[in-house]
Amino acid sequence: MTASSLTPIAPETVDYVHGIARRARVAARELALLTRARKDAALLALADAVDAASDVVISANREDLQRGRDNGLTTNLLDRLALDEERVHAVADALRQVATLPDPVGEVVRGSTLANGLAIRQIRVPMGVVGMIYEARPNVTVDAAGLGLKSGNAVLLRGGSAAASTNAALVDVLRTALEQQGLNPDAINLLVEGGHDAARALMTARGLVDLLIPRGGASLIQTVVLESTVPVIETGVGNCHVYVDASADTDMAVQIVTNSKTHRPSVCNAAESLLVHRDAAERIMPALMASLGGAGVTVHGDALSEGYAAAAGAAHLPITPQDDDTEFLSLDISARVVDSLDEAIAHIQEHTSGHTEAIVTADRAAARRFTTEIDAAAVLINASTRFTDGGEFGFGAEIGISTQKLHARGPMALPELTTTKWIVDGDGQVR
Amino acid sequence: MTASSLTPIAPETVDYVHGIARRARVAARELALLTRARKDAALLALADAVDAASDVVISANREDLQRGRDNGLTTNLLDRLALDEERVHAVADALRQVATLPDPVGEVVRGSTLANGLAIRQIRVPMGVVGMIYEARPNVTVDAAGLGLKSGNAVLLRGGSAAASTNAALVDVLRTALEQQGLNPDAINLLVEGGHDAARALMTARGLVDLLIPRGGASLIQTVVLESTVPVIETGVGNCHVYVDASADTDMAVQIVTNSKTHRPSVCNAAESLLVHRDAAERIMPALMASLGGAGVTVHGDALSEGYAAAAGAAHLPITPQDDDTEFLSLDISARVVDSLDEAIAHIQEHTSGHTEAIVTADRAAARRFTTEIDAAAVLINASTRFTDGGEFGFGAEIGISTQKLHARGPMALPELTTTKWIVDGDGQVR
Repeated sequence: MTASSLTPIAPETVDYVHGIARRARVAARELALLTRARKDAALLALADAVDAASDVVISANREDLQRGRDNGLTTNLLDRLALDEERVHAVADALRQVATLPDPVGEVVRGSTLANGLAIRQIRVPMGVVGMIYEARPNVTVDAAGLGLKSGNAVLLRGGSAAASTNAALVDVLRTALEQQGLNPDAINLLVEGGHDAARALMTARGLVDLLIPRGGASLIQTVVLESTVPVIETGVGNCHVYVDASADTDMAVQIVTNSKTHRPSVCNAAESLLVHRDAAERIMPALMASLGGAGVTVHGDALSEGYAAAAGAAHLPITPQDDDTEFLSLDISARVVDSLDEAIAHIQEHTSGHTEAIVTADRAAARRFTTEIDAAAVLINASTRFTDGGEFGFGAEIGISTQKLHARGPMALPELTTTKWIVDGDGQVR
Repeated sequence: MTASSLTPIAPETVDYVHGIARRARVAARELALLTRARKDAALLALADAVDAASDVVISANREDLQRGRDNGLTTNLLDRLALDEERVHAVADALRQVATLPDPVGEVVRGSTLANGLAIRQIRVPMGVVGMIYEARPNVTVDAAGLGLKSGNAVLLRGGSAAASTNAALVDVLRTALEQQGLNPDAINLLVEGGHDAARALMTARGLVDLLIPRGGASLIQTVVLESTVPVIETGVGNCHVYVDASADTDMAVQIVTNSKTHRPSVCNAAESLLVHRDAAERIMPALMASLGGAGVTVHGDALSEGYAAAAGAAHLPITPQDDDTEFLSLDISARVVDSLDEAIAHIQEHTSGHTEAIVTADRAAARRFTTEIDAAAVLINASTRFTDGGEFGFGAEIGISTQKLHARGPMALPELTTTKWIVDGDGQVR
């Protein structure tokens, strides 16, 4: 429990957040009844509105960028924040893409006719009001609004202060477009006042908010998980391992490890830890370390791994116990040589964040044991960790990657934004 | 936030609970790998062990009953607590019933082959360690252990103090039987020390407990939901309405309302609130009130309803605003005459606990609107609210009825005690 959770939230901030949440609930009831045709038409109209407002959005974005530079944001963060005409168009296109996806609402999940003649069926229905607390990238604002609309949910968004002007401009455009479609603008809401207290009021708005999804760094996610009394889906921290088995093909191991680490180091499905079976080390490590070194990776290795890294000319450091649990999100990887599959499995079981774990192997039995015994959202055989992704899995969209076990695990898309309802159809049955 | 959540938990109690949870995690890893055949054989052995220990269990139960009488427990609670040979046999038979159910673990939920040749499939896997905090009935102890074992989960049980001796005897029998089957006894654990602090340590054992299910009264459930930092499934509070539409058949309405209210008034799927369309009141109310009155029900009615109740000789009281939100769990029902389907829907939307809501109608359009617009775990047409039940739905077992939207909604059985894992099978794919 953090100190902040013990300080009362300013009453006017509670009123502000609860007021928005109550209006969102009214909108959610209307959204739940919309046909797919109505929702898709609205999504296309929203996309057109974003395109048409490109200048306004870019101008608001310039304010954020200026403030960011004044506040000393890193170049990397500024780049994530920045919108130009092309990026605004991509944001609008994402809405058009959501319009093409099947509507999860109304899907019959299962059903049967009971012995007494009652026909029961479980169907997907919207959650209601979905809250989201997230950091810099403004495209998340529009993605969340679009996925929320398609799944029949009202959204209550709390973006990072770095993107405040951009988010406000975008939500303004979206709400106006909803009204022009004859829909309730309270389907899309942005919390702009109240600072951290507004986020806390959102986290504790039980009965008003049906689901809260944090997206951002580990500290943001932990705060939301620990301080929330509304249901939360934990997302995104990935200490992903690649285990190179004794039987692994050399080229395949080199390609998968290098791709897992270097394809996009700043994301949660990038590899952070390498384990190599002792029997494969002599054969695979030289090429593997040369490949990682060539891509600019620093190897945090045990004595053997560091030796191979040094010999191959890769940057290297001695591994620390902390490294085994570190999500570097950079061109760094921890590396250990292990004596057996058992040791690899035990190490991963101890250090996994439950996101993605991969094995490179030619051995059926090893693959079967690894996929059975490793407990994570995704377990991969002979494939890059970078594939754990809603887009790659063919979901067409992604609202986050759940690392918890309740409700959703792994990439989350439209169905994960729904709950279910049993409909029981009788003709007078009693017990 | 309650005052108690601000008091630190005694460190020795944290050690005690976390120690048990850590041993349970080790057992959970072993359970996750058991075949269905192994688990079913164990369930049958557990059932035989419970039967064989009948005398020991009944003798422990006598201690609880004596203490309960000394502490002034109500006859109703004492009856729920009491075990005789027949009841112990029923408890054992429930384990045999669980053995006959399909194993949810390993079920392929969905899957596909991606354009790049990656074969992905989402399979059901156990949650890991499932905690349960519950009140009097000792059969819940064995049910939870059996459902946990079948779904590959270790269980960490915190029963009510009223059943302490019975629960301890039962868990002792179950753990010994596990050992005799060559299984890890830490698959089934009972928290016996530490009082309320032990429950709090369980509620905050993040990373050690994967899911916590409270079962009991509204105050127990609220405490668990608000104080837990581990994932919780909220169960059981049911302010269930029956709405009698203008077009309802008289006999059907009388039977459904009477059955919903009186079949077993103390359970969460019993009806607590009656709404009758004005156009049907004159036709249906006299017979309906006579039926409820004959069954000993007290009607908390608005002016019109109370008038009908009085005329039919049913006990009656004027309705209070609190009655609209009261889960009586007794032979009491609130009753209102409404002007329209719209008014009925609006009333239910305001007062529903999200458990079960029923309409009695002959009108297709009314049924369709009711099932579409009412947001609850189960929405029934022309059937008693008493059907919202895992056994009735054909699940073969029930661990509780979820009234939340995340993960599970409505009756929960074996599949709801699992999560999923994506297995991605490649031959060297990289991005």
